[in-house]
Amino acid sequence: MASNGIRDRVAIVGMGCTPFGEHWDKGVSDLLVDATKEALGSAGIELPHVDAFWVGTLYSGQSGLTLSRPLKIDYKPVTRLENYCATGSEAFRNACYAVASGAYDVAMAIGVEKLKDSGFSGLPGSGSVGDGTRAPLTAPATFSLLAPAYGKKYGVDDPTLKEAMTRIAWKNHKNGALNPRAQFRKEVPKETIACSPLVAGPLGIFDCSGVSDGSAAAIIVRAEEARRYTDKPLYVKALSFVAGPAAGPMDPDYDYTTFPEVVASAMDAYAQAGVKDPRAELAMAEVHDCFTPTELVLMEDLGFAARGTAWKEVLAGTFDLDGELAVNPDGGLKSFGHPIGASGLRMLFEAWLQLRDEAGKRQIASVARGRTLALTHNLGGAPGECVSFVGIVGSEPSA
Amino acid sequence: MASNGIRDRVAIVGMGCTPFGEHWDKGVSDLLVDATKEALGSAGIELPHVDAFWVGTLYSGQSGLTLSRPLKIDYKPVTRLENYCATGSEAFRNACYAVASGAYDVAMAIGVEKLKDSGFSGLPGSGSVGDGTRAPLTAPATFSLLAPAYGKKYGVDDPTLKEAMTRIAWKNHKNGALNPRAQFRKEVPKETIACSPLVAGPLGIFDCSGVSDGSAAAIIVRAEEARRYTDKPLYVKALSFVAGPAAGPMDPDYDYTTFPEVVASAMDAYAQAGVKDPRAELAMAEVHDCFTPTELVLMEDLGFAARGTAWKEVLAGTFDLDGELAVNPDGGLKSFGHPIGASGLRMLFEAWLQLRDEAGKRQIASVARGRTLALTHNLGGAPGECVSFVGIVGSEPSA
Repeated sequence: MASNGIRDRVAIVGMGCTPFGEHWDKGVSDLLVDATKEALGSAGIELPHVDAFWVGTLYSGQSGLTLSRPLKIDYKPVTRLENYCATGSEAFRNACYAVASGAYDVAMAIGVEKLKDSGFSGLPGSGSVGDGTRAPLTAPATFSLLAPAYGKKYGVDDPTLKEAMTRIAWKNHKNGALNPRAQFRKEVPKETIACSPLVAGPLGIFDCSGVSDGSAAAIIVRAEEARRYTDKPLYVKALSFVAGPAAGPMDPDYDYTTFPEVVASAMDAYAQAGVKDPRAELAMAEVHDCFTPTELVLMEDLGFAARGTAWKEVLAGTFDLDGELAVNPDGGLKSFGHPIGASGLRMLFEAWLQLRDEAGKRQIASVARGRTLALTHNLGGAPGECVSFVGIVGSEPSA
Repeated sequence: MASNGIRDRVAIVGMGCTPFGEHWDKGVSDLLVDATKEALGSAGIELPHVDAFWVGTLYSGQSGLTLSRPLKIDYKPVTRLENYCATGSEAFRNACYAVASGAYDVAMAIGVEKLKDSGFSGLPGSGSVGDGTRAPLTAPATFSLLAPAYGKKYGVDDPTLKEAMTRIAWKNHKNGALNPRAQFRKEVPKETIACSPLVAGPLGIFDCSGVSDGSAAAIIVRAEEARRYTDKPLYVKALSFVAGPAAGPMDPDYDYTTFPEVVASAMDAYAQAGVKDPRAELAMAEVHDCFTPTELVLMEDLGFAARGTAWKEVLAGTFDLDGELAVNPDGGLKSFGHPIGASGLRMLFEAWLQLRDEAGKRQIASVARGRTLALTHNLGGAPGECVSFVGIVGSEPSA
């Protein structure tokens, strides 16, 4: 496809992110206000300085009034976007295009979700009645299909595969334990994870990400103006979003060991950013670890590991905080939590901290060694019928 | 606000619009396919030629899969937007920014809604439970408040005001009778309108727009490439979207005779397009006539009539098809129908036909007399708490 990208044309100059978790004492509006305040403060500006807004939420509001009402926005553009669990990344992507087009000088992208008081233990249902031709599977059930499919295709026995899944959860909890904003802030022993009650197929409760309340926001300006706001802007290198034909569940050739949407968006993003070898060039990656087999498969779809080898790399610690390529250094969906509309921007928030050397106890070493690029990957939907975002940001203005 | 606009940077080179109405034999997917096919054919291209998609719907789908599934889109970007009843205009606006930024060469904006089989006679409810501090008013009830407020402020007695409201409905049905795609395709006598059963306050059933199924789409490219696709592109002169603080219902100073959001977006759009006197410069306008008092107030908010005089202008026929400034020549929401996500793009479709001299029996004369600009106005929400879009397109590439 003709996807030219807008490499180095816009930059992030401020970010904010609420703690994720169970915010029984806050509403959607409170979370939006909190994330906005931190993002504005981080960019050193006040609300009237922002020309236009993009708000992403799946369930927690309709229309731009979701944001303009609590912020008392004085007659400015507020667009609402939604793209399943990749909603936050879409708010960011569309705000970037508007700034790159010159329509506005300063934009804010913000995502929010308040799930804990929805009355559901997982994600709220769509409420629509199907026509009976599709199996009514839960999210854990659809993603659980990845594990046996992967094991069979690459000859990995069940205990070894479970060990790899367990290590992913263990790593992300270990990272999250260092993150004061994470929903689950303690390490969990591997045996606890491995023996946790089964939810769907081989997935135990600890193979599933958290359901959370939270909000995250970014301030975006044209690249040439970025240093007026901060000494350490993040330049947008690539923005790729892909929706597939969603025929996987009906396609006999779809084998549940890959997300073609992720492969397509990763290739597009690498082409936009001029990245040839992501594992060698990226400082870190935040990926959509909604369930542990998802992160496993993503390592291959994103080109971090060769096909059929991610399980070995996981077990070898390649993607640990001090590994060759840190993946989900902030704890990921698994430990930081997953307030849907906020997650894509939360991933960028970790890139913001790490590339600026502000991640404290969990600061990755690759940045000091000179790596300047971070990737965020955000998925929506289910295997065989999903949308995928891959973004790349960097601390240097041009290659 | 710093709203620079993207005047003359992008152009519409193809459009499609399904008939609006009761499509019991079609689903959301069918409507999307129909509008897409017509838009692509109109631009002389095939689906693979489109680089990225923006789909607007309020109730009829979640995520980009809403479009990528029926079109079998082969791994390309599909963004879903929603902004109440201004959803379709938002899909268009965001697609325009992406093309103007250079990220994509060819984009499609499409809107869709299928309301007739929703199980509701009006609009589906949001399903959320309020906290008891707000009156649970229907859409007709909130908009009905405009009529007595307007009458009181400007000293217009009830029968005269009802006569003006009736004439708006009569005009839009008269226009719609000439439109083969409209939901209601016959003229309605003024006495029938005036005596129709009351729905809320002074609003009779004929003062309310139709609830419909339908879809409309536009193909957008950079302006300099437009003539590769059509001899008669429409250039985008202005795109303004505004969300207000939504405090009207609680603000003692809000008097229900104006939409401040519309005034703000109109001023912004006129500044972007360099329009000084809209009534004298525009060839036509499509406005959000969800209820007849809305169109009345919009004539003043959009600067087509001085404050307190729109009722006289309406009664004098200023906004008739053969009047000084044709408003809703296609029949408007009133007669063409209102499938929410599609309406903003349906308005553009009429601009597309009229400015290209392709509107057949309802072709307005102002185009032949040399006027080249059309305005579309799309509203979401309710008086005192709404979002407003004003767009201006023109048949000439630059002023």
